[in-house]
Amino acid sequence: MKLLRIGAKGQERPALLDGEGRLRDLSAHIPDVTGATIGPESLARLRALDPASLPVIEGEHRVGACVGNVGKLICTGLNYADHAAESNMPLPTEPLLFMKATSAICGPYDDVTRPPGAEKLDWEVELAIVIGSRAKHVREADALKHVAGYCVINDVSERTYQLDRGGQWMKGKSYDNFAPIGPWLVTTDEITQPNELDMWLKVDDVVRQNGNTRTMVFSVAKVVSYISQFMTLEPGDVIATGTPPGVGMGIKPEPVYLKDGQVMRAGIQGLGEQCQRVLPSQV
Amino acid sequence: MKLLRIGAKGQERPALLDGEGRLRDLSAHIPDVTGATIGPESLARLRALDPASLPVIEGEHRVGACVGNVGKLICTGLNYADHAAESNMPLPTEPLLFMKATSAICGPYDDVTRPPGAEKLDWEVELAIVIGSRAKHVREADALKHVAGYCVINDVSERTYQLDRGGQWMKGKSYDNFAPIGPWLVTTDEITQPNELDMWLKVDDVVRQNGNTRTMVFSVAKVVSYISQFMTLEPGDVIATGTPPGVGMGIKPEPVYLKDGQVMRAGIQGLGEQCQRVLPSQV
Repeated sequence: MKLLRIGAKGQERPALLDGEGRLRDLSAHIPDVTGATIGPESLARLRALDPASLPVIEGEHRVGACVGNVGKLICTGLNYADHAAESNMPLPTEPLLFMKATSAICGPYDDVTRPPGAEKLDWEVELAIVIGSRAKHVREADALKHVAGYCVINDVSERTYQLDRGGQWMKGKSYDNFAPIGPWLVTTDEITQPNELDMWLKVDDVVRQNGNTRTMVFSVAKVVSYISQFMTLEPGDVIATGTPPGVGMGIKPEPVYLKDGQVMRAGIQGLGEQCQRVLPSQV
Repeated sequence: MKLLRIGAKGQERPALLDGEGRLRDLSAHIPDVTGATIGPESLARLRALDPASLPVIEGEHRVGACVGNVGKLICTGLNYADHAAESNMPLPTEPLLFMKATSAICGPYDDVTRPPGAEKLDWEVELAIVIGSRAKHVREADALKHVAGYCVINDVSERTYQLDRGGQWMKGKSYDNFAPIGPWLVTTDEITQPNELDMWLKVDDVVRQNGNTRTMVFSVAKVVSYISQFMTLEPGDVIATGTPPGVGMGIKPEPVYLKDGQVMRAGIQGLGEQCQRVLPSQV
């Protein structure tokens, strides 16, 4: 299933993308797509519905983040060997974790406004894991049972804020709309091999990232298992699994950062493509 | 006002501590103490109530974290000069920020269970700020208007996980019950000078931390203003403002860490005292 959320920010309603690409209203069956409604039992109930029986949503609508009320947005850093190299950082010997503020989460087509004075605004297409059931101290072999599905995230980053403003990365990862999520939450019945997915990111017409999740240092199952040793993963938590090479910071001979008006398009095989326009600072 | 939350985890109801130390039930007036109910207007309505008109809550009850449904739990590192020195870290030139997982939040008297293999379990009493209204790019002079109140937090930390497991501190800050918050959310009418509060932490009968919020490097108002430049602070967000000297990691000649069965008592002038027993790992 491809689940999504339609409507103004904070007022999204749940929807299903059917096999013909139409939006079907799920409001009669679940109040929203959140941790409370993406557990195994709830998803089994939704899967048993006949999509043709659901009302079609006509017209143009904003698409929200494909999961609402996210409790934690946890990121895995330097999880592709080539990206660690381009960042001039050593390859981690165990997953490197950091967090983005959940207030940074936005819809997949929402604009990204430049923070004031931000001259190193950068992109990072990543596979995101959406947790479906509580996971604490789970083994790698059991980890995928706790996953509801997958989606695209663009881990938008401001490199000066991240690296040159005194410590911890979250400072450059958490501005409003630095975490577009979606368009769809694709459930695990459709994505059975999360470590075999092509992924790409374009800035305007230039392909900047072009990779595959099979070159992750730590696999999806490993990342879920690992994080669950340090904190309890709750339904609706989102984990970004790291970005392949091609971020602006790593471009040779000179880094290339986002300019106002440019458009990022980030996609992953089977998970759809998102796009965001960069707007100038409003401060 | 002193607001608190009473009941089993996830089922807390809102209460007020009256002038005689009795618990008064607020359930008829607000559904819970969360970002949705601690804005200026809601607090003004609660303040207008006659506490004597509210039902007394009799008997023994668990006390929950004094604010529920926390969106972000943001921490300020090395915000007391002496603590930076004892940690062998340079004094930050601007606030050092990191996050704890919100799933680590627990009540002020809940037990803290040791993570598996954790040999460097440590304490950090801190003044926590609870945000009452949205704050984005606020000036220092306006920052305190966005604060609903203050409470005690113990920023429980596992130093090996934090410092020796590959990067970013959150890995050692986010285990379940590593963030006891409360007992009370004390509103800003009672705490008008948040940077003049005595604070302490005892392990069993030994005073380990004994400081005052006036020795913060960056004041409460500065910290709120600063964070609001990097992310939008939402009602119900909690900011821990750093710890004074005396953490276990800094004790000379040898660090001292928590042993199973020991009890931490962390308090701040006007905000009450919390305590947690350390339990052995259950894994």
